[in-house]
Amino acid sequence: MQWVYDFEAGSKEMKDILGGKGANLAEMSSIGLPVPQGFTVSTKVNFEYFENNNKLPEAVIKEIDEAVKRLEEKAGQKFNDAKNPLLVSVRSGAAISMPGMMDTVLNLGINEEVAETIGKNTDNYPFAYDNYRRFIQMYSDVVLEIPKSKFDKVLERHQLETGVKTFKEFDKERMLKVIKEYLEIVKMNTGEDFPIEARDQLLKAIEAVFRSWKNERAILYRKINGISDSLGTAVNVQRMVFGNYDGTSGTGVLFSRNPSSGKDELFGEFLFNAQGEDVVAGIRTPEPIANLKDHHPELHKEIFDLAKKLENHYKDVQDIEFTIERGKVYLLQTRNGKRTAKAAIKIAMDLVKEGLIDEKTALLRIPADSVSTLLHPDFSEKSKAEGTMLAKGLAASPGAAKGKVYFSAEDIVKASQRGEDCILVRKETSPEDLAGMLNAKGILTSRGGMTSHAAVVARSMGKTCVAGCSDVQVDEDAKLVKAGEHTLKEGDYISIDGSDGSVFLGELNFEESKTSDELEVLLDWSDKYSKTLVRANGDTPTDAKVAIGFRADGIGLCRTEHMFFDKDRITSVREMILAENLEERKVALEKIRPFQEDDFYNILKTMGQRPITVRLLDPPLHEFLPKTEQDVMDLVEQTGKTKEKIEAVSDSLHEFNPMLGHRGCRLALTYPEIYEMQTEALITAACKLKKENIETAVEIMIPLVGFNEELVILRKLVQETADRIIKDMGVELSYKIGTMIEIPRACLTADKVAMNADFFSFGTNDLTQMTMGFSRDDVNVFMGEYIDKKVFDVNPFVTIDREGVGQLVKMAVEKAKSTGKDIKIGVCGEHGGDPSSIEFLLSCGLQYVSCSPFRIPVAKIASAQYHIRQEMK
Amino acid sequence: MQWVYDFEAGSKEMKDILGGKGANLAEMSSIGLPVPQGFTVSTKVNFEYFENNNKLPEAVIKEIDEAVKRLEEKAGQKFNDAKNPLLVSVRSGAAISMPGMMDTVLNLGINEEVAETIGKNTDNYPFAYDNYRRFIQMYSDVVLEIPKSKFDKVLERHQLETGVKTFKEFDKERMLKVIKEYLEIVKMNTGEDFPIEARDQLLKAIEAVFRSWKNERAILYRKINGISDSLGTAVNVQRMVFGNYDGTSGTGVLFSRNPSSGKDELFGEFLFNAQGEDVVAGIRTPEPIANLKDHHPELHKEIFDLAKKLENHYKDVQDIEFTIERGKVYLLQTRNGKRTAKAAIKIAMDLVKEGLIDEKTALLRIPADSVSTLLHPDFSEKSKAEGTMLAKGLAASPGAAKGKVYFSAEDIVKASQRGEDCILVRKETSPEDLAGMLNAKGILTSRGGMTSHAAVVARSMGKTCVAGCSDVQVDEDAKLVKAGEHTLKEGDYISIDGSDGSVFLGELNFEESKTSDELEVLLDWSDKYSKTLVRANGDTPTDAKVAIGFRADGIGLCRTEHMFFDKDRITSVREMILAENLEERKVALEKIRPFQEDDFYNILKTMGQRPITVRLLDPPLHEFLPKTEQDVMDLVEQTGKTKEKIEAVSDSLHEFNPMLGHRGCRLALTYPEIYEMQTEALITAACKLKKENIETAVEIMIPLVGFNEELVILRKLVQETADRIIKDMGVELSYKIGTMIEIPRACLTADKVAMNADFFSFGTNDLTQMTMGFSRDDVNVFMGEYIDKKVFDVNPFVTIDREGVGQLVKMAVEKAKSTGKDIKIGVCGEHGGDPSSIEFLLSCGLQYVSCSPFRIPVAKIASAQYHIRQEMK
Repeated sequence: MQWVYDFEAGSKEMKDILGGKGANLAEMSSIGLPVPQGFTVSTKVNFEYFENNNKLPEAVIKEIDEAVKRLEEKAGQKFNDAKNPLLVSVRSGAAISMPGMMDTVLNLGINEEVAETIGKNTDNYPFAYDNYRRFIQMYSDVVLEIPKSKFDKVLERHQLETGVKTFKEFDKERMLKVIKEYLEIVKMNTGEDFPIEARDQLLKAIEAVFRSWKNERAILYRKINGISDSLGTAVNVQRMVFGNYDGTSGTGVLFSRNPSSGKDELFGEFLFNAQGEDVVAGIRTPEPIANLKDHHPELHKEIFDLAKKLENHYKDVQDIEFTIERGKVYLLQTRNGKRTAKAAIKIAMDLVKEGLIDEKTALLRIPADSVSTLLHPDFSEKSKAEGTMLAKGLAASPGAAKGKVYFSAEDIVKASQRGEDCILVRKETSPEDLAGMLNAKGILTSRGGMTSHAAVVARSMGKTCVAGCSDVQVDEDAKLVKAGEHTLKEGDYISIDGSDGSVFLGELNFEESKTSDELEVLLDWSDKYSKTLVRANGDTPTDAKVAIGFRADGIGLCRTEHMFFDKDRITSVREMILAENLEERKVALEKIRPFQEDDFYNILKTMGQRPITVRLLDPPLHEFLPKTEQDVMDLVEQTGKTKEKIEAVSDSLHEFNPMLGHRGCRLALTYPEIYEMQTEALITAACKLKKENIETAVEIMIPLVGFNEELVILRKLVQETADRIIKDMGVELSYKIGTMIEIPRACLTADKVAMNADFFSFGTNDLTQMTMGFSRDDVNVFMGEYIDKKVFDVNPFVTIDREGVGQLVKMAVEKAKSTGKDIKIGVCGEHGGDPSSIEFLLSCGLQYVSCSPFRIPVAKIASAQYHIRQEMK
Repeated sequence: MQWVYDFEAGSKEMKDILGGKGANLAEMSSIGLPVPQGFTVSTKVNFEYFENNNKLPEAVIKEIDEAVKRLEEKAGQKFNDAKNPLLVSVRSGAAISMPGMMDTVLNLGINEEVAETIGKNTDNYPFAYDNYRRFIQMYSDVVLEIPKSKFDKVLERHQLETGVKTFKEFDKERMLKVIKEYLEIVKMNTGEDFPIEARDQLLKAIEAVFRSWKNERAILYRKINGISDSLGTAVNVQRMVFGNYDGTSGTGVLFSRNPSSGKDELFGEFLFNAQGEDVVAGIRTPEPIANLKDHHPELHKEIFDLAKKLENHYKDVQDIEFTIERGKVYLLQTRNGKRTAKAAIKIAMDLVKEGLIDEKTALLRIPADSVSTLLHPDFSEKSKAEGTMLAKGLAASPGAAKGKVYFSAEDIVKASQRGEDCILVRKETSPEDLAGMLNAKGILTSRGGMTSHAAVVARSMGKTCVAGCSDVQVDEDAKLVKAGEHTLKEGDYISIDGSDGSVFLGELNFEESKTSDELEVLLDWSDKYSKTLVRANGDTPTDAKVAIGFRADGIGLCRTEHMFFDKDRITSVREMILAENLEERKVALEKIRPFQEDDFYNILKTMGQRPITVRLLDPPLHEFLPKTEQDVMDLVEQTGKTKEKIEAVSDSLHEFNPMLGHRGCRLALTYPEIYEMQTEALITAACKLKKENIETAVEIMIPLVGFNEELVILRKLVQETADRIIKDMGVELSYKIGTMIEIPRACLTADKVAMNADFFSFGTNDLTQMTMGFSRDDVNVFMGEYIDKKVFDVNPFVTIDREGVGQLVKMAVEKAKSTGKDIKIGVCGEHGGDPSSIEFLLSCGLQYVSCSPFRIPVAKIASAQYHIRQEMK
């Protein structure tokens, strides 16, 4: 077993034993980049260290001694050498980066004698003694566990006494006085003298770094980030180079490309005459790297070339630490750079163009979620920085929107007809606000969560929305919205950012518009590598057109109830609900039927041969009843029913928990004539199209099935109705009948349910609600608390809960497949547009996902990524 | 393989091959009872018959011929004999009784010649020809599939022509004319003559009976009752005896004990000069069997002795068919008699006293549910038959109650103080009605299901309740209740029967009171044979005392919120909810604490060492807020908060689906101080008792856990609080902390949850709601439809849904046990008092059940039955 590796002996593939930092130092050394010489004590030693009662085993010490000898030779310097003493840094570096969690010691090898030598050699005593002082403090902190503050107090006292600002400004006598006091502190605290032998210092420092693997903050960090405790850290020992040597020295960090915009330009900052910790301490402000170009073009070019060399070698943007010692550039660390979503897309695509990576690699590097930024306008950063933020709500549907506030759908419609840009502001929205939402630039609600009506509908429309913004108080009657000390009235301007939930006073400026070329390329790639069909949730021909624009493979959820809310239909729907017997109900349904048929005709025609899953009526009937006194009176006039009758029906339909009430297929068991009418309308539309030689692929979905018996009864009804229409129309037409799996019991009995379904579509919204016992309309009150207290990490309505809800999905898929039936299985809940959920659902064996049209690119990329990763396994 | 068995060759154990009727005929023959001779063609032949293209195989025919020969010898009669012709009956009889589903042919062997002989032998031509006529009609119906109505029309025509009422009144010429026309119908329909050879008739009839196994109604019956199609029926061929011979002949059915009351007396009816079908046809009204005693004491004695002999032999009440032929009694069938719940108890206990059966057998024969009849008064049958039924609702809590109707809790309290018996009538009840419910004799609601507030609370109080009675319209403001054409106002009398859900006008009479001695015996037996602990759900010392009276092993669910509704506390609770910060909330909680401590002290003292599971606060806070304008104004005065503030809080606490909202442990994650106060109060009470040398066994239950992380956080809070109090009080006290498993996700992750729980208590009410997506408050609207349409057989809130909810319970128990932890698991939902659910839950491995105090006897018997059955396996 080898315990210690010279940098030249390693490579970037050896992260497990060298740690991330060590492996990259080795890689850079191997390819001939300017890295100060050094060696790495392997991560394996960490385990041995703990096994050996927190001491380095003899065999390891032997290898360290040998490595030091080799280092001394290569550096032409020696530990404690009277002429040319060697100083080293000792740094931790685990396989998985744990920034700032473990310890570092710089300038190791120094003592008073060595400092004196360095002072003489460099003719820079302040530099030499400053290094010595820093070392005592750092070593005492890390190895001897003496708080840094004790030393700081000494320094402060002397600074006060002398009136200087930094240690380097002291005269030598004062410097030695400070150092003497430092050494006394050590003696006081440990009972021993500060070690003067470099080898002693080194072994103690290495042990301290290994020990720091088990410090409290490191343990917590690993727990939070799910990093195994058994990995251990490596220790990197490296010859010191000094950015604080003189005015031609310095230190800095940079990205090889702009990590915010993705632009191909160096991005970072540097400081002359400084060590890394000076940058961190914030005493001096570093300069942008671009400044180098003007004053030190040769240095800038050298750094630029090194950065490009690294980028070409690693085939990705690099995040680099460098130090300049008397005009010479050294690289101290490199790693793949973190970047914004926007930058990730640009960089990945540029790297493909430059031939550095292939399309699959590029796809894997793009956070699927990030493509949504290509679809929506943004406010410029400047404009946001200068604007007055009124409140912050939930980032419910991305994009930026500004306009005049209005408080009712009606006012919005009127204002938009006047050509105004407007924002609909409400406590919460309901299906009756649809026209207003459609005509508004954006929607702001003070209540409701990420899956509230406003949020769901806004996302499906690709409309900007900030929801659940409890910082604002909406008074719809007075047409006022209050936010802190600001009170806005109808017609005042606001700007809302649906990507971060912020709400601004007045009008912000938009960022320059983006190209959609990138999107097209990404969709090309995704379609090439994904084996999953991506459908859209959409209810109208407009939705369907948007979906087709994003290359949807069909419609996975067409909700028929949205059609019921239209002004010209709602009265008939209400008549149907108020019907006192089957005959009356059938008369009312006959009035609705032509509308439904027409709607189906148009959406089917738009989708053509692409499959479309039509969900039969789902919401409880009370959702369609009039809410206001005026609406009730209108209905009295329109239907001839008395006000008392209407109120009695309203009263009888009231539910305590509508989510768990009389809806979905339960309605159809009571009123089969509703599904019968809907099936008639749908199949008639498809038959008409068939007669016009337009092929369709109709899938009829029965919602909220919990018992196989429900499906048996309703499948029979739908099938008999459909076959009757097909026979009457004299055409040939095939169609499918399936069900939405959204009730835990349906998952638990999926083997039975599957026997009567041509397809399953998981409704993971409702499934999440029932599996967790969370009402999505109410959960917002405590969701924040739950995330804060780490009950879960992310909103389970956004990303599927794999352990609970996911277990049911997996079980249901397995049970369904155990029947040996060739059943098609997909998802049409909100999770169908979430990358992490898509990954999980595809791993469960789903064949398609369906999401709101504007999430299609996200879903396509996430699916492609899943399949590329599977291929690589 | 033997195909045909003489009666003497079989026994009652041979049901599989002889069918139920055949086996009992064989048994009766073997023990020397007067059974007409005969033989049984085995059920195995049925399968052969279908295999052999619906023909009897030759080997079977050969055995039948031999059996007929033996029968002829024993009977001293012969088929088609000119002097002494043999007639037989051919009857179906499967292993599992399928009453009326298959076919029977009587009087087989007759033709014109034989009829003439019989007429001559008996000197009773009408009898002889009537038998012939009946045979033609029956044989044609069963074997030749000619509708009976065709023959009826002929008979009717002749009756009209002659003006007589029955065939037997025709003269011989007319008789022969009718028979001739019958035979012509047969010829017309089959193209063949009616068979005159008895052997031909017999073989055809046997085939027809076998064929009838697959007739539509039999198939449907088996499907509904879960009987295997592969069992097949046997065919019994038996010498005819004639109850229609003359005035000294007759036929009847009887029970060896009264199947309604269980009284030890013959119970049944008979008819002289009749065959069984005359009784069924309803032309003549049979007489009670008791009448025999007066007019034919010798016959009565003979029948009584036979019945007792059978009862002693079968060791159970017998349901017997008999025929008397010229003064001689023959037994045609016997089987264990069905009986009412009430009778089942009395009979089982009497049989033990008589030494016929042992206690275990007796326990198994008592439907566990039936013991609840021992606890509640009933209206007399007579009184119900004569009363005016107003409506029928759900039998929500058994018993009978009558009194004046009142529409508010307040009015009830006042009326009961005046000494009136009263019935609380409301649309639905809420926790604020508790005092009213307590003071009412019974409760009637027009809304809500079997697990609505009214139903659950009534059962827990042992109070009669009819719930969800949608036939009545309640107007609480006008203090009126309408039912059809009746309108009752405050103070009018009604009677309600919570055992069948019926509601009567005015006052019915109670049945004579019952003894509780039987109950004590049953509890003795149950305790002797059950290994399951039965606890009570109860919130007060009163509940606890009732529970102890029924020998409860502890309290399995003590709901702390019911204590919050008391008049002297609710204001403090509301203050707590209105608190604008932690300090205010703590002040309010401090006011509630002494009340809670006092409540806990008293119930703990009552229960002593018996364990008591205390559930920390569960309902959403809005349940405690004032509902009426007056209450709001009172609160303004009491708290000094403004009306606007109160309304704003009400508004902000409003939930769309409270069932899935901010309640249970979710509240405690937001307001830990609530659980902290409750724990303090509870543990302080236990410590005080400890100081008084009273041992307690406190189990603290955290409700609505869906995530292990919730339990980790709250267990820590509760444990730290409890340990602090124990330390402060300076006593030693052990306690348990567990959780209620009521959310599907908790079942799915039970292995993790179990690691932090000392016990699990399944809350199967909520678990059913969430697993099925049914709100128990709303499900009533379609529950009836679901049961009618056979989506499920029984209300899943009454009897656990084994396939869905049960699967989750099973999974959770297995997962919990897989941790290797010694965790105690029980149930405290409504299912804990339902026998079928108890059987299932115990089979899943639960160690205890908890139910409302008045269900304890039921649960104890059900548990004993489970363990006795397990032992027998």
